[in-house]
Amino acid sequence: MAEAITVSIVGASGYSGAELLKILNRHRQVTVKKLFANTSAGKRIDEVFPSFRTLSGMMLESYSSDAACTSDVVFLALPSGEAMNIVPELLTRGKKVIDLGGDFRLKDISLYETFYKHQHHAKETVQQAVFGLPEWNREQIRSASLVANPGCYPTSAILPLAPLLKEGLIEAQGISISSLSGVSGAGRSSTTELTFVEVNESVKAYKVGTHQHAPEMRSILESITGMKIGLTFVPHLIPITRGIYTTIYAQLRKKVGQADVLAAYQKHYSGEPFVRVSDSMVPEIKHVNYTNFIDIGFRVYPDNNQLIMLSTIDNLVKGAAGQAVQNMNLMFGFEETEGLL
Amino acid sequence: MAEAITVSIVGASGYSGAELLKILNRHRQVTVKKLFANTSAGKRIDEVFPSFRTLSGMMLESYSSDAACTSDVVFLALPSGEAMNIVPELLTRGKKVIDLGGDFRLKDISLYETFYKHQHHAKETVQQAVFGLPEWNREQIRSASLVANPGCYPTSAILPLAPLLKEGLIEAQGISISSLSGVSGAGRSSTTELTFVEVNESVKAYKVGTHQHAPEMRSILESITGMKIGLTFVPHLIPITRGIYTTIYAQLRKKVGQADVLAAYQKHYSGEPFVRVSDSMVPEIKHVNYTNFIDIGFRVYPDNNQLIMLSTIDNLVKGAAGQAVQNMNLMFGFEETEGLL
Amino acid sequence: MAEAITVSIVGASGYSGAELLKILNRHRQVTVKKLFANTSAGKRIDEVFPSFRTLSGMMLESYSSDAACTSDVVFLALPSGEAMNIVPELLTRGKKVIDLGGDFRLKDISLYETFYKHQHHAKETVQQAVFGLPEWNREQIRSASLVANPGCYPTSAILPLAPLLKEGLIEAQGISISSLSGVSGAGRSSTTELTFVEVNESVKAYKVGTHQHAPEMRSILESITGMKIGLTFVPHLIPITRGIYTTIYAQLRKKVGQADVLAAYQKHYSGEPFVRVSDSMVPEIKHVNYTNFIDIGFRVYPDNNQLIMLSTIDNLVKGAAGQAVQNMNLMFGFEETEGLL
Amino acid sequence: MAEAITVSIVGASGYSGAELLKILNRHRQVTVKKLFANTSAGKRIDEVFPSFRTLSGMMLESYSSDAACTSDVVFLALPSGEAMNIVPELLTRGKKVIDLGGDFRLKDISLYETFYKHQHHAKETVQQAVFGLPEWNREQIRSASLVANPGCYPTSAILPLAPLLKEGLIEAQGISISSLSGVSGAGRSSTTELTFVEVNESVKAYKVGTHQHAPEMRSILESITGMKIGLTFVPHLIPITRGIYTTIYAQLRKKVGQADVLAAYQKHYSGEPFVRVSDSMVPEIKHVNYTNFIDIGFRVYPDNNQLIMLSTIDNLVKGAAGQAVQNMNLMFGFEETEGLL
Repeated sequence: MAEAITVSIVGASGYSGAELLKILNRHRQVTVKKLFANTSAGKRIDEVFPSFRTLSGMMLESYSSDAACTSDVVFLALPSGEAMNIVPELLTRGKKVIDLGGDFRLKDISLYETFYKHQHHAKETVQQAVFGLPEWNREQIRSASLVANPGCYPTSAILPLAPLLKEGLIEAQGISISSLSGVSGAGRSSTTELTFVEVNESVKAYKVGTHQHAPEMRSILESITGMKIGLTFVPHLIPITRGIYTTIYAQLRKKVGQADVLAAYQKHYSGEPFVRVSDSMVPEIKHVNYTNFIDIGFRVYPDNNQLIMLSTIDNLVKGAAGQAVQNMNLMFGFEETEGLL
Repeated sequence: MAEAITVSIVGASGYSGAELLKILNRHRQVTVKKLFANTSAGKRIDEVFPSFRTLSGMMLESYSSDAACTSDVVFLALPSGEAMNIVPELLTRGKKVIDLGGDFRLKDISLYETFYKHQHHAKETVQQAVFGLPEWNREQIRSASLVANPGCYPTSAILPLAPLLKEGLIEAQGISISSLSGVSGAGRSSTTELTFVEVNESVKAYKVGTHQHAPEMRSILESITGMKIGLTFVPHLIPITRGIYTTIYAQLRKKVGQADVLAAYQKHYSGEPFVRVSDSMVPEIKHVNYTNFIDIGFRVYPDNNQLIMLSTIDNLVKGAAGQAVQNMNLMFGFEETEGLL
Repeated sequence: MAEAITVSIVGASGYSGAELLKILNRHRQVTVKKLFANTSAGKRIDEVFPSFRTLSGMMLESYSSDAACTSDVVFLALPSGEAMNIVPELLTRGKKVIDLGGDFRLKDISLYETFYKHQHHAKETVQQAVFGLPEWNREQIRSASLVANPGCYPTSAILPLAPLLKEGLIEAQGISISSLSGVSGAGRSSTTELTFVEVNESVKAYKVGTHQHAPEMRSILESITGMKIGLTFVPHLIPITRGIYTTIYAQLRKKVGQADVLAAYQKHYSGEPFVRVSDSMVPEIKHVNYTNFIDIGFRVYPDNNQLIMLSTIDNLVKGAAGQAVQNMNLMFGFEETEGLL
Repeated sequence: MAEAITVSIVGASGYSGAELLKILNRHRQVTVKKLFANTSAGKRIDEVFPSFRTLSGMMLESYSSDAACTSDVVFLALPSGEAMNIVPELLTRGKKVIDLGGDFRLKDISLYETFYKHQHHAKETVQQAVFGLPEWNREQIRSASLVANPGCYPTSAILPLAPLLKEGLIEAQGISISSLSGVSGAGRSSTTELTFVEVNESVKAYKVGTHQHAPEMRSILESITGMKIGLTFVPHLIPITRGIYTTIYAQLRKKVGQADVLAAYQKHYSGEPFVRVSDSMVPEIKHVNYTNFIDIGFRVYPDNNQLIMLSTIDNLVKGAAGQAVQNMNLMFGFEETEGLL
């Protein structure tokens, strides 16, 4: 078994940061060394999240690279635009970095600047980042210094689509993706739009056709399949705390049956510890919440010549902190499932 | 102003029946004469729904056509397969009938029998039924004896699609429809699947590609537009009590901008009292709940050559009882909005 | 029937203000003349609450007394401390005023200043205010110029307690009150504590023993009964949008049965249009939500020599806007239930 | 470290049974040997709870004592009245038994028969059962053959009350207890009352003054303190899946300050691994959900001479399966927190 390591979390006062801490506290080869936060610096983590009382009383500190560099690996769970200012120095000082934000996911900087609406200040570093989707990049992740952990929506859409595109079962154009997300996906912020009264007993689509995860889905699928992809993505906010439900419609390329689709999934995912595919069971969010699993279901619909794909993940686990720990496990030679079952 | 009338409700112990009673109690030209129920017969309505205490203490009776025929119009809010046994006699005895169920919506009996999974016993009566979507059938409804009130999902999908198909802005094939429904849409039944614990903090798709509202959408759109329609429909159950959110993806037929779509909607819906279209505002369920409105939004997405349509209704009002009263208002010459604002 | 009137709402961009507008739009003797707001001034009401689209497109204006005085009655739905700066001038200019806030409910100014934590600037005006609880102050309300509309929690606690204290069935000391409130009771503000993620799937007590509604309950009960009252009040925030559930424990003064308690309630509330008492039915929030009713239930519990009282209201209706309209109806000689059934 | 053991779960298709399996799967000294169910016998556990897919594919079997006796300890998670038919034989055959139901909690059989509304068939066995509240019975539990795991409500009420009664800070009579429970506490059954639509956006008290957990609280507090206890208990169903919030009012016996109460709690609970007391922090359900902790807060309220106590637990963990595993750890000499942090 690989040696024990120390880790730091930058952005520990957000939901993804707290989920990371919860998972890492249970990980048998990890010691959490430093927690960094911004406005909450100076408080203990259990003052911000009282669920940690008696489990962790660590202080939240203002970020400094010296402090961060006392650990072997640094997790970043920050709003977009912040990681790019921190990561180059950490890499220079020889640290491994796992970034849960969007700063290092898009190789095409102009795409980043269009969708994230600010300039990129670490363009060269972007090119060395490995996209942290273990099911498709496992070997690269093992040797990566910088992992760009996938977005929650892209995780839920890329995993069901990639095998079927690769096997030529569906068209690469005209893909329609409808995702439903729990509110923790919006982060721990306090706008009127996210209050209980505004969200409860309602649904709304948002960033219709303009969400920054659409180019991430497209560019990663293109790099996996080598095809030119055309997709439309509509995210919806629904009144649950955690979980993503993604429903995808694609045109069938040829006469395809349920068994063909299942075979394609089995070919690519049969050994995957966190991918559960079924040709009969319809995914439900409650089956994956608080876990690192993605559940995938599907239905061939010959009347309209379409395939329907359905997937569910916990946005804070497989969609963020859990997948980040899965990546860390690969980077340090730990059991891939350690801390995650 | 038209003369006052009397009404009866068959199936008053369900959610749609109760919503009908609530609306009709506020209607200035209506007196509710009889309430019929099955297992709850012999109870007062306020024993079944205590919200009616001091507002209505009417008895729930076992159905008899003689009793029903003491009123001018009979509303049916029954599980599928039951209305077909009641309606022919009511029509023969000269009553107007508004059926909130699915028995008289599909002119193609074989389609009915495939999707509803039982035989039809009133095939001739089906042919005289008018589909009660006022925005497209207003004149026929005025003179109808039997109105087949639209399903909740079809209401939410046909209204955004029909004008754009008619105006040739979108392709008639390859339409993808994703709907989210509150749990009251499943009726007042007690299966483990509908308990709070199973539904809360989760989402599930159901009847994927096999829901009986898909042929209803298709056949009504075909009769409105004269085109052959190809659509895929996936309904999802989400943890809210009331409301439907429908997201539709269609291929654009030609170079179309936001203004073209808005113009098509305005052409067809500008005088409609219950249709609210906006090219900028994204629909949210909370804006329409407890009302008879449908809100429609849309976004041209040229990258993938698609149009995204979004709509919201309250499944118990515009999706059931409210639209039924709107139809009654038309049939009896009342103000179309009476009882509904 | 009394003559039609015009009304203004100050604070129309909050939840109580919007609920007022919704009710008043259906009221047959009322025309809404002016809507005032603070940060939302300059917007249309349907931009703030899109549910009003096509129903009201009135502008939100910055408050001015001249504009307010163009209407017959002014409703105030403001944070505490603001109404006191507006009301004296309105009264001087001959307007009727109904204040939904706390500024004029407590005759004892020092109590106000202790619990509301700021100074009072209209101490004389406080003395002329009538506490707007129609069930106990109906005659005074009819002739009042200034009505202090009761708090939501006090409405839910005073109504079940007052008859039993007056009839000597329970002790005036040692009363314990536990209330659960929907989140709309906290107003339309954007603190992290009120976001969906923080509220959902949780419960918290707050202002334990320090809530400003405790002295309101005590002082009003003392003025109704003439007794010295001792009570403990614990409010809890629960994950629902609307509604209050209040559970009260009091010591029985003597051997009392269910029938005695019911008789006391009937003596005081038998003609009340919005009070529904039952000795067998347990109140549930869903039976009163979106209505102006209060439902009251109770249980004599001889083992511990206690009486349990249970009550439910909709905090935005009987707990705020509905009761305010009930008061307006009394002040202007309209049918007391107009707009409220 | 103690030797590894094997366990069986009788009633594995309910929520408590499934929670037990989830916890035991993570326990390092336990192997789950057999799962028993009634109507679900013959299915795999992951067919009933798909969250177990790839984690457990164990079969659910019809109960037989021979099969149960292949394991070292048997957990029972059954409706009341069923465990009593199974337990005596298991004990005779030398097995350790932990019963999560109510059959062995009340030493007074007549109290059991009154509140549970059926006869008891294993009256002698009741007398050898140890009430499984580790904080008060740790030594007895270590050597017990049969542990009666506490009810969820009693756990949440006894733990805050016992130290203060023992230390003479509060009166033993006139205690008022108001508890709010998530719906999983009602078990996995399918009555109309527990459907999402009926529970959502509402609250109801139930079994007011007649709940079977009231005599459990009273008799256990009497056995702990040696005093005669008088308490009133009102449980409420609220729209959350998991968690209990308990608010307790008691009369202060003498002049008592916050520090005295804190000292009493510290005296009894300072070394407890799962009890977290604070004199400043108000408990919230979200801080304890999915954990075995109980959080306790309190407030001295001199105006009404009362003490307010507040507590929160997860009803399925500290209120059921977690506490059961804590008891198992004591019975077999494992680390008390194993599997529970």
